[in-house]
Amino acid sequence: MSKAAILGAGSWGTAFGKVLAEAGTDVTIWSRRAEVARSISEDHENPGYLPGVELPGALKATADHRVALDGVDFAVLAVPSQTLRENLGVWRDDIAPNVTLLSLAKGIESGTLLRMSQVIGQVTGAEQNRIAVLSGPNLAREIVQGQPAATVVACPDSARAMEIQKACATGYFRPYTNTDVIGCEIGGACKNVIALACGMAAGVGFGDNTVATIITRGLAEITRLGTAVGAKPATLAGLAGVGDLVATCTSPLSRNRSFGERLGLGGSLESAQEATHGQVAEGVKSCTSVRALAENYDVEMPLTDAVHRVCHEGMSVSDAIGLLLGRRVKPE
Amino acid sequence: MSKAAILGAGSWGTAFGKVLAEAGTDVTIWSRRAEVARSISEDHENPGYLPGVELPGALKATADHRVALDGVDFAVLAVPSQTLRENLGVWRDDIAPNVTLLSLAKGIESGTLLRMSQVIGQVTGAEQNRIAVLSGPNLAREIVQGQPAATVVACPDSARAMEIQKACATGYFRPYTNTDVIGCEIGGACKNVIALACGMAAGVGFGDNTVATIITRGLAEITRLGTAVGAKPATLAGLAGVGDLVATCTSPLSRNRSFGERLGLGGSLESAQEATHGQVAEGVKSCTSVRALAENYDVEMPLTDAVHRVCHEGMSVSDAIGLLLGRRVKPE
Repeated sequence: MSKAAILGAGSWGTAFGKVLAEAGTDVTIWSRRAEVARSISEDHENPGYLPGVELPGALKATADHRVALDGVDFAVLAVPSQTLRENLGVWRDDIAPNVTLLSLAKGIESGTLLRMSQVIGQVTGAEQNRIAVLSGPNLAREIVQGQPAATVVACPDSARAMEIQKACATGYFRPYTNTDVIGCEIGGACKNVIALACGMAAGVGFGDNTVATIITRGLAEITRLGTAVGAKPATLAGLAGVGDLVATCTSPLSRNRSFGERLGLGGSLESAQEATHGQVAEGVKSCTSVRALAENYDVEMPLTDAVHRVCHEGMSVSDAIGLLLGRRVKPE
Repeated sequence: MSKAAILGAGSWGTAFGKVLAEAGTDVTIWSRRAEVARSISEDHENPGYLPGVELPGALKATADHRVALDGVDFAVLAVPSQTLRENLGVWRDDIAPNVTLLSLAKGIESGTLLRMSQVIGQVTGAEQNRIAVLSGPNLAREIVQGQPAATVVACPDSARAMEIQKACATGYFRPYTNTDVIGCEIGGACKNVIALACGMAAGVGFGDNTVATIITRGLAEITRLGTAVGAKPATLAGLAGVGDLVATCTSPLSRNRSFGERLGLGGSLESAQEATHGQVAEGVKSCTSVRALAENYDVEMPLTDAVHRVCHEGMSVSDAIGLLLGRRVKPE
């Protein structure tokens, strides 16, 4: 039986905690807020993020990261991407030397333009073969219902990937192993931006042909960026690429798609944020760092660029869509 | 101004006629039934397939294929794939020698396992460089509303592809040219089978994670088959592959997805057929020929195989899904 800590009690961290517990792993969630930890441990619920979902009795929680990290085989990093560095700075000295670090965070760090595994390596000093990522079409709301889902666990060290695979495999949750950390991270960071674009188009009133076209072009620009930074194209054609992209771009459960829809319906960034309980969709932040990374590698990402213009340069959604769809006819 | 005939007055043939007419092409639709031709010409409506849609006044129709084909630059073949050979046998002698033959039919011919462009070549004797296909995320219901959509026109002769591109480009309909006829045809023939699988999963009650996983694996098996028969992988990663697949698998407007949903809800093939006004979804027929083609090329297509078992071998939808999702954990 392996032992794990989940650092971060948001919806995906909590849902993944449920998966691990149901797979027979000894798991403790760390939450910054003591009342959330108490609620998970005692009431078996995380009402702020997953109201109405009964969590397994075996799922423990604490507000003390040292308690969570004590004696674990792997630590799951489940805080938002832009806060990972700061949090890791606090946790670093309490993570034992051989612990596998599994990232659930999806994003490119602002300013440094580092992927999450690079941030983890930089802050903790861990070798890349100790760092893994998990990514796939994994809408948390469906996972906690026990809906069948597949995912990818990527690590340069296949043995570690297989340990995590074993620790989280259940009847409804199927992890596949891979060694391409870069591909999983690029797919995960970019898809939220494309989901914003799909949401905007839907909000403006466009239909499934348009959304499918945006997904197709989104996949093309993600694959261009991924290939440029060292990802394998096959990873981006798989569950952590196409799979996660399609789920995030088409599901009404996707925060980024819903946020984009509000913008497409004419809402401001501020009003969309209010409607989502003060949360800004991840893609709103990611589009800036993804675009900057693409510029560094001289990769064209017209969709990401259009989302950035809407979110940060005051362009209207209809002007952005016109820009994208109004291009002259040419070879594919 | 170019001149075109559309042979077949179903929903896509009629919708594409509207696009051509609005792009300024002189276009005549042939319908087998005189009353449909009269309705399109005089009432500007095709009530059987596109009720409530006002067709352009310039769009003519006839029940005499010779009238439709007289003096045309290209003939659009818009009959169901399994009837194309028989129809072409009737039209063959009335198609002038240099006319471009543009296929809208999506499927693999039963028995012969030929792609539509091969059937066209065989029956008419036309060289492959006179034969083009059009394919993409093009749900007819959205196209007739003027919703923005993109598509691919593929022909080994780029000049012919560009002529068609010019003849059908409008503000809302964006054709891209390509030379990979095989890729477009494989994408078009296989996506209906995968859409049936997505519909079945949705009908059983599974969510967006499952549908995204099926789309991802569907794309993988389509790409394996395509590559084996000579398609370019990039075509299958583009609008005629991913794009068409995503639209067909996720849209409630997709006949194949809806048909699969009825099966997933527990309906029989017969009852699903009744609910769709006697039409069998294309994928029900295609799965047999796609599977046979895959066998000939020694390509594994587990999703197509599962759909075939449900549609033609009496397997229950839940058993088929269990078979697909219940596989042991392994590398991606």
